[in-house]
Amino acid sequence: MKVMYSGSFDPVTKGHLDIIYRCSKKFDEVLVVVFDNNSKKHLFTAEERKGLIEKVTYNLDNVFVDLAEGMLVDYARENNIDVVIRGLRAVSDYEYEMTVASMNNLLYNGLETLFMLSSPNYSFISSSIVKEIAKLKGDISQMVPKVAEEALIKKFEEE
Amino acid sequence: MKVMYSGSFDPVTKGHLDIIYRCSKKFDEVLVVVFDNNSKKHLFTAEERKGLIEKVTYNLDNVFVDLAEGMLVDYARENNIDVVIRGLRAVSDYEYEMTVASMNNLLYNGLETLFMLSSPNYSFISSSIVKEIAKLKGDISQMVPKVAEEALIKKFEEE
Amino acid sequence: MKVMYSGSFDPVTKGHLDIIYRCSKKFDEVLVVVFDNNSKKHLFTAEERKGLIEKVTYNLDNVFVDLAEGMLVDYARENNIDVVIRGLRAVSDYEYEMTVASMNNLLYNGLETLFMLSSPNYSFISSSIVKEIAKLKGDISQMVPKVAEEALIKKFEEE
Amino acid sequence: MKVMYSGSFDPVTKGHLDIIYRCSKKFDEVLVVVFDNNSKKHLFTAEERKGLIEKVTYNLDNVFVDLAEGMLVDYARENNIDVVIRGLRAVSDYEYEMTVASMNNLLYNGLETLFMLSSPNYSFISSSIVKEIAKLKGDISQMVPKVAEEALIKKFEEE
Amino acid sequence: MKVMYSGSFDPVTKGHLDIIYRCSKKFDEVLVVVFDNNSKKHLFTAEERKGLIEKVTYNLDNVFVDLAEGMLVDYARENNIDVVIRGLRAVSDYEYEMTVASMNNLLYNGLETLFMLSSPNYSFISSSIVKEIAKLKGDISQMVPKVAEEALIKKFEEE
Amino acid sequence: MKVMYSGSFDPVTKGHLDIIYRCSKKFDEVLVVVFDNNSKKHLFTAEERKGLIEKVTYNLDNVFVDLAEGMLVDYARENNIDVVIRGLRAVSDYEYEMTVASMNNLLYNGLETLFMLSSPNYSFISSSIVKEIAKLKGDISQMVPKVAEEALIKKFEEE
Repeated sequence: MKVMYSGSFDPVTKGHLDIIYRCSKKFDEVLVVVFDNNSKKHLFTAEERKGLIEKVTYNLDNVFVDLAEGMLVDYARENNIDVVIRGLRAVSDYEYEMTVASMNNLLYNGLETLFMLSSPNYSFISSSIVKEIAKLKGDISQMVPKVAEEALIKKFEEE
Repeated sequence: MKVMYSGSFDPVTKGHLDIIYRCSKKFDEVLVVVFDNNSKKHLFTAEERKGLIEKVTYNLDNVFVDLAEGMLVDYARENNIDVVIRGLRAVSDYEYEMTVASMNNLLYNGLETLFMLSSPNYSFISSSIVKEIAKLKGDISQMVPKVAEEALIKKFEEE
Repeated sequence: MKVMYSGSFDPVTKGHLDIIYRCSKKFDEVLVVVFDNNSKKHLFTAEERKGLIEKVTYNLDNVFVDLAEGMLVDYARENNIDVVIRGLRAVSDYEYEMTVASMNNLLYNGLETLFMLSSPNYSFISSSIVKEIAKLKGDISQMVPKVAEEALIKKFEEE
Repeated sequence: MKVMYSGSFDPVTKGHLDIIYRCSKKFDEVLVVVFDNNSKKHLFTAEERKGLIEKVTYNLDNVFVDLAEGMLVDYARENNIDVVIRGLRAVSDYEYEMTVASMNNLLYNGLETLFMLSSPNYSFISSSIVKEIAKLKGDISQMVPKVAEEALIKKFEEE
Repeated sequence: MKVMYSGSFDPVTKGHLDIIYRCSKKFDEVLVVVFDNNSKKHLFTAEERKGLIEKVTYNLDNVFVDLAEGMLVDYARENNIDVVIRGLRAVSDYEYEMTVASMNNLLYNGLETLFMLSSPNYSFISSSIVKEIAKLKGDISQMVPKVAEEALIKKFEEE
Repeated sequence: MKVMYSGSFDPVTKGHLDIIYRCSKKFDEVLVVVFDNNSKKHLFTAEERKGLIEKVTYNLDNVFVDLAEGMLVDYARENNIDVVIRGLRAVSDYEYEMTVASMNNLLYNGLETLFMLSSPNYSFISSSIVKEIAKLKGDISQMVPKVAEEALIKKFEEE
């Protein structure tokens, strides 16, 4: 089975990486898709975000990284994917994800969303909190992979 | 009993319409009030939002549409309304609505807020998600009434 | 509008009474229905529970108390009631009530459930917690009406 | 991929069946496992519960039904299954399922739990609510498959 | 400051122990109180439950263990304690605890309840789940202290 | 024990004040810290926010007010504080606070976060809702202390 794991990954965290590793062990092929949504402001460019994921997954033979614009359902249809993986961290995630999954199913009948629970140690990590801590020069080494940590430090030195 | 159903309706969805129809069957008079809150940015003008609701409720004799500014409690008091109807879609709605209802009751003792649950098929529809999909040229025909769909398509062509 | 407010009321609390008073002010007629569900064990008999509610609502002209068995939807249909009132205290209530309301609507199309929020000061009171405290001889005077307090004290002295 | 979908199925509902159908379309093999937990009292025997699922899935070539006792993780290990499917209906489900999934992962490292959302129209259906309605002679035809409806009616006539 | 940490501890888990250790580091004195509530059925006697906690906390100089019956507020008042510690694992805990804390504050004005979050690795452990696993001969070594594990194994061999 | 109670306090509400009073009764010293986070836009300057808290706590001998920038964990470490107090109003608060507490504990091992529940009457008050009402000339006298009310009225007259 080929599955898709999508997000903005601004930048990839150890929580995202945990989901990617676990998918890689169960599914035949995992397509990690970085969505570039113009209406949200990102710290890293879409290319940079894609590059970071490629670096931390280079040793996983069945994981591929791609960039996309527009709607998830259109990308899925064009790439013959009918299973989407989402990580769940908390109850608030759950409600949002439920809405998005219902919407996607309405727009692409047959698209299935499968949810995986974040590992307890990563359940409180999000890209936005990591960026906030990095901005204040806090220690993020336990929250993001090494390359993302370096990229964040560099990004905030430039500012 | 005369009740008030208020919101920003930017634009009206099939979820809103479901609540209006159900209220129309139970209450003597339903006043749908489009609140124009300057601090929020809307896609449609207040007049356009009011117009769309009028078009989709023209066949309901006991439903009236109005525009308002300022606080809900002031509008209610001035119009002799002491029952407000709110739709509940999810747990997250519930907490926000609980806060607003408590606040309104503090500001206008005697004002009662009655909650109706969204029908399951509409529980994941919100104006903001509909706008996001319309912007990406996705199919919104199952989420909003025909006139709102056309208005959304036209709005995003202009951009 | 005639509405129904049902429950097991074992015994009636100040939280229930708050909902009854508020309904009495807004609706033409309020029918408080004590359901006798054999599968649940009650402390008070159905007659005792009905009697306590009658005592604390004798001064409300548009409030009537009744006993029922079987399904809520059957009672509602037989009594020409198509609006049910439910109190909401917390998120956990909300999910249960959502299930029951959806179920009732499936069994009796056209039955509407309206929710009222418990007043903050009563939101943590439930009949079961009150019974637990009464059993341990704790002070329940702020949680139940005087007659229910006396009935509880007497009930636990008999044991 | 071979997955396992387990529960007590007392009896199977349209909500369960929806999950089984959706799994059947995406996974190579779906093993529906009826767990017989002595500490819970069931209306139907384990054999009856298994029989009902077999009847409603006989047309699905890649769906198999089995009976099990003891722990889910032991069954999974013995049958070379490392992916468990669970349905999610509501936030309260979510917390319980999160606990069970974490526990199972602790007891069987490598076992993955994938969650699917109930379709909106089935999200309020549970075996226990269906039994309650059937007991009161209510209409359950929209909630359970025909064979389960007949079995329930027969069961409550015997009582 | 002297605080009280109460529960039924049937038996003490690594989650309970985590809270006790963390309290022991911050507060002058920690009183762990095993409540013996006759209406609940326990696996271990109150004396056994107390004994297990004493064994796993013998190295903590400021931790004391006691047995109590009746209401928490009465015990607290009699022992000059006005701060109660409670562990929070999940949203469902939160609502129950909120209710109990409000109730206790109503019964003993001035009693304060302080909440500590369970460490992520212990957030899914509860005494009831541990007992269920032990009953099925599952591995509970990561969930309870050694002495509680041995006691559980022995208890289920006797059965 | 010395504890820290931090926030943006823009401006201080009766809900905040309730937590401060309750802390003041239980802990030896309470340090109220106004954090100045540049990325958030505030109505009042950090100095103004600090001034308002000082005015409403001048009669509490063990309460001190301070200003800080940067990360909470850095401030705590530099001031030898290892206990942080947070108020909880609702389930949505709970999840956010759980994330922040876990994050802070990761960044400063040994830092403990203790939660206190808002009193029921203040649980729906937040600085942002108060500002919204004040802007619309609504009555906020029951939600904020007198000095904060006057400051808000003045602020919105200037606009």
